Amino acid sequence: MRQKQIGTNMETGKRKFGLVIHGGAGTIACSKMTPKIEQDIRAGLQRALEAGHEILKEAGSSLDAVVASVRVMEDDPHFNAGKGAVFTSDGQHEMDAAIMDGKTLKAGSVGGLRHVRNPVSLARAVMENSPHVMLVGEGAEFFAREIGVELVDEKYFYTEERWQALQRVQKAEAEARAGGKPFVISDQDRHGTVGAVALDRDGNLAAATSTGGNTNKRPGRIGDTPIIGAGTYANNQTCATSATGDGEYFIRVVAGHEVSALMEHGGMSLEKAAQTVIGKITRLCGTGGLIAIDRDGNISLPFNTAGMYRGHVDSTGQRVVAIYK
Amino acid sequence: MRQKQIGTNMETGKRKFGLVIHGGAGTIACSKMTPKIEQDIRAGLQRALEAGHEILKEAGSSLDAVVASVRVMEDDPHFNAGKGAVFTSDGQHEMDAAIMDGKTLKAGSVGGLRHVRNPVSLARAVMENSPHVMLVGEGAEFFAREIGVELVDEKYFYTEERWQALQRVQKAEAEARAGGKPFVISDQDRHGTVGAVALDRDGNLAAATSTGGNTNKRPGRIGDTPIIGAGTYANNQTCATSATGDGEYFIRVVAGHEVSALMEHGGMSLEKAAQTVIGKITRLCGTGGLIAIDRDGNISLPFNTAGMYRGHVDSTGQRVVAIYK
Repeated sequence: MRQKQIGTNMETGKRKFGLVIHGGAGTIACSKMTPKIEQDIRAGLQRALEAGHEILKEAGSSLDAVVASVRVMEDDPHFNAGKGAVFTSDGQHEMDAAIMDGKTLKAGSVGGLRHVRNPVSLARAVMENSPHVMLVGEGAEFFAREIGVELVDEKYFYTEERWQALQRVQKAEAEARAGGKPFVISDQDRHGTVGAVALDRDGNLAAATSTGGNTNKRPGRIGDTPIIGAGTYANNQTCATSATGDGEYFIRVVAGHEVSALMEHGGMSLEKAAQTVIGKITRLCGTGGLIAIDRDGNISLPFNTAGMYRGHVDSTGQRVVAIYK
Repeated sequence: MRQKQIGTNMETGKRKFGLVIHGGAGTIACSKMTPKIEQDIRAGLQRALEAGHEILKEAGSSLDAVVASVRVMEDDPHFNAGKGAVFTSDGQHEMDAAIMDGKTLKAGSVGGLRHVRNPVSLARAVMENSPHVMLVGEGAEFFAREIGVELVDEKYFYTEERWQALQRVQKAEAEARAGGKPFVISDQDRHGTVGAVALDRDGNLAAATSTGGNTNKRPGRIGDTPIIGAGTYANNQTCATSATGDGEYFIRVVAGHEVSALMEHGGMSLEKAAQTVIGKITRLCGTGGLIAIDRDGNISLPFNTAGMYRGHVDSTGQRVVAIYK
């Protein structure tokens, strides 16, 4: 089967593939980054890249690749998704995820999950096994049980580091309300989000994103991650994108679809379009970044923060992992 | 205050305003439409138009106008939003709504509401009184209580007609599963959704949409209505849009933002852009329609179904209400 796929690809000449991942953007203050943490994060990004790369180089699909990469980051406590999801204001976890298939424009999206180990896999199940695009809350978890997507106890998502981040953010907000010290919270305490975009050897684009949202977010808050066209978008005519940062701004700008629209209707290159969209976010005073790959395998990773956890690999096998600008 | 605003408007010459509303699109089979029901629906659309028109002609804001129009339809059991919301597969109601301000690109959106009398007003409160764009489920209703948006008992949303529609749809689906009669359900039984878009005398655009979703939808399903860029979008640079129909297709096409992008980046007129987007929905085999108004007061109301409950009024005072093509 695999051999046959490769043969087909050789006939059509479509051999190029590419994968880009992110693990969150923010200030990523060097002062708080120990060599050990930096090493762990770089290793996590490498593992995520490798998981997707294994699939793409064997002529697997971009959908399979982005899910594989995102699942690795969901299982790694260093990233704000799955295992490492941040806490809401009431000390719970509420996770969002989405996936989109650029070939069919089919999409699946989930929000407000509290027991799903790998939200990205539930998003894919919604896309492939339901008539709906988006399911949230208990209804989404009921569907997970029906379809056999793994549920875990809430305790699985407890990490000491995220709990301490909630305490810091709540303390800072209480002090701000009391008219005390200026409200300073590092982006590292506030957000994260992981994502992957890929082009496979058949020329199909896919995007996937997964997040725990913002530390101390209100219960019920949905960010840009599961909003198709905002945090997650893919279209074989243009590009695949996944965003991270202040989700509300990415929703207002309809960030992912705007990158695509600037290419399709405005004739821009991927790089110009992606930079233009981050410029729009910046003008609204939002912070964050996005990753994008186009149908020709060009990639772009713009962000307006000090750093973004990111990596990419292409069909030559060249791997890049980076944090700062 | 009002005098001053009108004065300001006269100086800038921006006097034109416009309002377009919809109350759902579908087959709207003439055979099922009694003269009494048609009269009631036309009267409901007239009242909704009038509520928004009253505000716009007195130089009120487009945001106030779209909320006023949508609230009238939410309170009218003939429309699938608020009072007349359809039932989910487990016999409950889960309502979604959204609003967007074209001047600031601020937006508010809510999903999975079960006790909010006027979901559009909660969407506005999220936009104006929270740092978030989207809140769903119990978290959204908790915010409603905090902010003083009216909650009602679930019984308020019970209507015999919607209950019978659920029985019809579930019976048809059960028969289809049993390999029986072909699965035929009228669009009237399946969906609806109400919305309004407006241009005010200050040149500001706004859009609002509210829905009970689809009859027999899965608990937790979120449609296009509260997805900014899909069912609801507004941008002073281009247009304001509100959609109705098979929500999943409008999400995949990012319908509202695509109308805007075709104008902004593709140089299309509002009419051409709106028709192009309905063409994309049609090619994916989705059904529905949308309403749109641009910064110059041009309007467009395309749909690919047999009918769409709709109406519009402009600064000349001319009112139009229509159902069929």
